[in-house]
Amino acid sequence: MAEYPPAFQELIRAFRRLPAVGPRSAERLALHLLSAEPAQSQRLAEAISRAREVIHPCPRCGFFAEGELCAICADSSRDTKVWCVVAQSSDVISMEKAGGFSGLYHVLGGRLSPLEKIGPEQLAIASLLRRIEESAPAEIILALSADVEGETTSLYLAPLIKKHGVKVSRLATGIPAGSGLEFADRVTLGYALTGRREV
Amino acid sequence: MAEYPPAFQELIRAFRRLPAVGPRSAERLALHLLSAEPAQSQRLAEAISRAREVIHPCPRCGFFAEGELCAICADSSRDTKVWCVVAQSSDVISMEKAGGFSGLYHVLGGRLSPLEKIGPEQLAIASLLRRIEESAPAEIILALSADVEGETTSLYLAPLIKKHGVKVSRLATGIPAGSGLEFADRVTLGYALTGRREV
Repeated sequence: MAEYPPAFQELIRAFRRLPAVGPRSAERLALHLLSAEPAQSQRLAEAISRAREVIHPCPRCGFFAEGELCAICADSSRDTKVWCVVAQSSDVISMEKAGGFSGLYHVLGGRLSPLEKIGPEQLAIASLLRRIEESAPAEIILALSADVEGETTSLYLAPLIKKHGVKVSRLATGIPAGSGLEFADRVTLGYALTGRREV
Repeated sequence: MAEYPPAFQELIRAFRRLPAVGPRSAERLALHLLSAEPAQSQRLAEAISRAREVIHPCPRCGFFAEGELCAICADSSRDTKVWCVVAQSSDVISMEKAGGFSGLYHVLGGRLSPLEKIGPEQLAIASLLRRIEESAPAEIILALSADVEGETTSLYLAPLIKKHGVKVSRLATGIPAGSGLEFADRVTLGYALTGRREV
């Protein structure tokens, strides 16, 4: 049985290592790149190399940066007294898209997970505490996911941060906007009840 | 609102130009490449550049080739008397995976489609006829899709090939293996009936 040439198979293998790309998608992507304008595949190859080259974690908060600091840490109009602790860089973008937060961030690089052998040393927790000592923020919002790993990480961080005399808060858990009670599971509904607000 | 750094956005844009990659997938792919081992993104970038560099259409049949001829044309054990005409290179792989065919191929590079302004000049038809004159095969199998474009292309090619005294055949149209009558549409069932075989 004849097969694709080796360089083509290597391209399929490289695509397959991407998330949510199965064998059929990888083949389709490779076929597309070989039949499209040469400029398109060149642009993709260059964009990949360049992104890796120029983007690095912001030395202050850990978000993607191209300059010395990331765009948020370098922005003097941001409120330096309120920080938001998130698990990963894409969470920063989610928060920014939602709007309503104008403080700084701290990207942990993951969440505590004994099963995946992610302990406090694997996360940017030491650098967070050092940064708190140096800059003394007024409040830190733990914006972590509402699942076991997120809860664990929040419970671990809260006392460590409070020790520095900083107010610690967490994102509310409850019924998603636009959704009804009939779609909420028991746990969510329990949180929504506990977290009820007087109107 | 803060955004991803420019090099990151460019990477997202380059991914978005791939087939079946929407804005969310493009972001996820870019995030993955930036958080994965540097070696992985380097491997992908190199695989893309290299594939474009070393793979070219086989000058004889049009299938992907890395050497002078493609692996099939260069294989002296193939039957040079029966050729299979297909629309695109991936069809060659489909045929090879199915097994049962040991002849040569000719890749048209598409199918006739007046709507998309693809006429005989846009396809590798002149080179097919030249190749027939030079090599005089015994039979040519038109392995084109069972839709309007495939039918049109087959109807156009058949008399041109027959003029050279070559037997022309087409793939059978009928009920897919493993499927029942209840899933077959009227047209497919009609073809299956016309093409019935004595047992």
